[in-house]
Amino acid sequence: MTLVQAKKLHHFVSLEQYDNHEIMNMIKTAVDFKRQGHFPSYADKYAINCFFEQSTRTHKSFEMAERRMGMQVLDFQPSMSSVKKGESLYDTVLTLQAIGVDLVVIRHSEEAYYTKLIDSEHINCSIVNGGDGAGQHPSQSLLDLMTIYEEYGSFENLEIAIAGDLTHSRVANSNMQILKRLGATIYFTGPQEWYDPSFEEYGTYSSIDKLIDKVDVMMLLRVQHERHTDSDNRFSKNTYLQKYGITFEREARMKQSAIIMHPAPVNRGVEIEDSLVECGRSRIVTQMENGVYARIAIIDSVLKHR
Amino acid sequence: MTLVQAKKLHHFVSLEQYDNHEIMNMIKTAVDFKRQGHFPSYADKYAINCFFEQSTRTHKSFEMAERRMGMQVLDFQPSMSSVKKGESLYDTVLTLQAIGVDLVVIRHSEEAYYTKLIDSEHINCSIVNGGDGAGQHPSQSLLDLMTIYEEYGSFENLEIAIAGDLTHSRVANSNMQILKRLGATIYFTGPQEWYDPSFEEYGTYSSIDKLIDKVDVMMLLRVQHERHTDSDNRFSKNTYLQKYGITFEREARMKQSAIIMHPAPVNRGVEIEDSLVECGRSRIVTQMENGVYARIAIIDSVLKHR
Amino acid sequence: MTLVQAKKLHHFVSLEQYDNHEIMNMIKTAVDFKRQGHFPSYADKYAINCFFEQSTRTHKSFEMAERRMGMQVLDFQPSMSSVKKGESLYDTVLTLQAIGVDLVVIRHSEEAYYTKLIDSEHINCSIVNGGDGAGQHPSQSLLDLMTIYEEYGSFENLEIAIAGDLTHSRVANSNMQILKRLGATIYFTGPQEWYDPSFEEYGTYSSIDKLIDKVDVMMLLRVQHERHTDSDNRFSKNTYLQKYGITFEREARMKQSAIIMHPAPVNRGVEIEDSLVECGRSRIVTQMENGVYARIAIIDSVLKHR
Repeated sequence: MTLVQAKKLHHFVSLEQYDNHEIMNMIKTAVDFKRQGHFPSYADKYAINCFFEQSTRTHKSFEMAERRMGMQVLDFQPSMSSVKKGESLYDTVLTLQAIGVDLVVIRHSEEAYYTKLIDSEHINCSIVNGGDGAGQHPSQSLLDLMTIYEEYGSFENLEIAIAGDLTHSRVANSNMQILKRLGATIYFTGPQEWYDPSFEEYGTYSSIDKLIDKVDVMMLLRVQHERHTDSDNRFSKNTYLQKYGITFEREARMKQSAIIMHPAPVNRGVEIEDSLVECGRSRIVTQMENGVYARIAIIDSVLKHR
Repeated sequence: MTLVQAKKLHHFVSLEQYDNHEIMNMIKTAVDFKRQGHFPSYADKYAINCFFEQSTRTHKSFEMAERRMGMQVLDFQPSMSSVKKGESLYDTVLTLQAIGVDLVVIRHSEEAYYTKLIDSEHINCSIVNGGDGAGQHPSQSLLDLMTIYEEYGSFENLEIAIAGDLTHSRVANSNMQILKRLGATIYFTGPQEWYDPSFEEYGTYSSIDKLIDKVDVMMLLRVQHERHTDSDNRFSKNTYLQKYGITFEREARMKQSAIIMHPAPVNRGVEIEDSLVECGRSRIVTQMENGVYARIAIIDSVLKHR
Repeated sequence: MTLVQAKKLHHFVSLEQYDNHEIMNMIKTAVDFKRQGHFPSYADKYAINCFFEQSTRTHKSFEMAERRMGMQVLDFQPSMSSVKKGESLYDTVLTLQAIGVDLVVIRHSEEAYYTKLIDSEHINCSIVNGGDGAGQHPSQSLLDLMTIYEEYGSFENLEIAIAGDLTHSRVANSNMQILKRLGATIYFTGPQEWYDPSFEEYGTYSSIDKLIDKVDVMMLLRVQHERHTDSDNRFSKNTYLQKYGITFEREARMKQSAIIMHPAPVNRGVEIEDSLVECGRSRIVTQMENGVYARIAIIDSVLKHR
């Protein structure tokens, strides 16, 4: 292992830095933590969660992971911090490190905001990416992978559809790359204008009605109203559901063993019929549960590599 | 005990779900906790306090109660949560439960917001109501009852005046009902237009000067400027005090053993003369102290019933 | 020790309440804590940090100090508190004390906000000043003193320049007074209109180029854009740096052993050339590290005097 690689593994900013073997190890570790119900202890370590964008699941799930490992957790309110006086993210992290923080989880609107941090010779606390703009959301990807693995025990020969707001999704991009290299066959569906030709490398586009009865996993993406301009918003809730979403009729056509996933928050009645969110084949709540274990595995991994 | 009753007791949303015996038990438990200074330990339990409305006393008092019992406490900032992306309260609670939260304390502007939560078959974490709009504020009621009980050892034959902003008070309504069924005699005072005929069932209206020298407890209510429309605000601070509030002269006329209560924040110089807030017969600070013990009793009760 | 003095020492609102011997003791205690890496334990004490103004360093550094001593730490969001309903700071602190808080750290925009608190016979929790408007910032002063002491082992005969925004600085005023009575010689530099004749008692004004090669410590102050009116803002970033700041050329002229300090956040490229923030003679990061130990010493001192 080169020095550069060693350095990078004490951060977690993108799943793409890991090879298949390392990803499978993290998934299996997360599943083991879930089964065993006990976790590595880091009672002398200090974590801080810096969320510059709104979040419930990711923010509180990281906090829960940190607390399950016995860490001390500080919270950070951007609106009450010196960021409001113009302090940069770099200087904020330098400060947090100086006062003794070991782990900084960051969600920020700037794509690849972490590059300046992990490239600096002055930053040696661990940076974990909780989402960077339209870029990566690697802890979400890992919990998605964990949820599929828990169901099928492998990714080989699985048929997986990724449905919906592909261009605005932080997770779609990294999921399609990693699922493919782990052996799955990928399909895309949803409004065709949200399908980019660059996705062809990973899978082909079809209408949902052609895919619904053959896939093992239907991965829905959230319609991110907050990232669309007005002119994009030409779908009424019900139109979207009927054309691209999981209706009762489509759910009934799915293979008996097939599962439905969604990173949430769900727009109930848009990507999926309201009451199907909690249906038997939905793994949406399971994904939220798994998020804690996936993040325990992530934090354990970065702290071990310091 | 029916299954429905059993289910409800792992939540705490209204005092009215409890019979007199159960209420007396909670009061006595709270008083015991205060006397003994040690509390049940729930070190493996996770609490989160979701305050969608401003609060110092109730919010921090719940947090203190949770910490005194050794619980892990997560905090929730509505403005930085997915609520801002349109996520419902139901989906927020479903998320918090999925990541492993055992107890969710909620203050929300929507009256009876909790109905959808406690009626759902998918929600099994404990919901504790920290105030619902113009509806209930049951933990405040319990601490009020505790403060009276601590003083008099019983509610039988006590003469209690409830004074002021009756129509906008979350606590007045539940206090009048419960104090009456516990044996107290209730009077109402304050601006007569804030007295509703429906209160007649619980007690009669008099001017403060007719009540001041005969009551055992004077329960002042906060003039909730933030819930009044402009046209309501025809009282100057001093007019209100002179007509309806506790002036030096009125305080001097009270029975020697009588006490003054107020849920706070007090509008000093409106409901009561500024310096009387900390006078000998004021239990306003005691109420704040008792709030922690009342909330320990509440949380202990709901967690025992899970 | 008189009763009044005893009472005051359970608060920490200004360094000026301490004599030279007491200040030296606090500095040495802080240095000892840093060297030993273990701290007094206050596991049964509750702290709350009430920051009404934006802060990263001071806020999180106090929180870290409290956690290093095993305290329970509550957080306070002014925007979600009853302060928004008009509750005064006094009543807020009275509430926090009533629910069992032992230590209240406050930053507030009102100069000497703490007077009413520490003069009240009803407030007996410890008040620690995290900055009061344009007034004091005594924990910053103590960490500055600690950083100089750590470097030189004494203040006698040190030549110290304080540079920049003297009129808007909370720390400049208390630093100049205390450094002088501890034996240092003080100089002032920066825009001459920010030098007030009242400073003459403590030291003389010179241009930075006359001071740069003779001082042992160059204490830069932050240009507080947020406290300036528009008409003040006649300096472009680069003009300020060239006229009053630490350029590469000036840094090279400093004595070999001389150090550069800044309370941060630094306006990189204004008070100092960007990359010099992390240069060999910069103690800017060290100051942030020392802040935790200085605050442990402060909290230990006030809690011991309760």
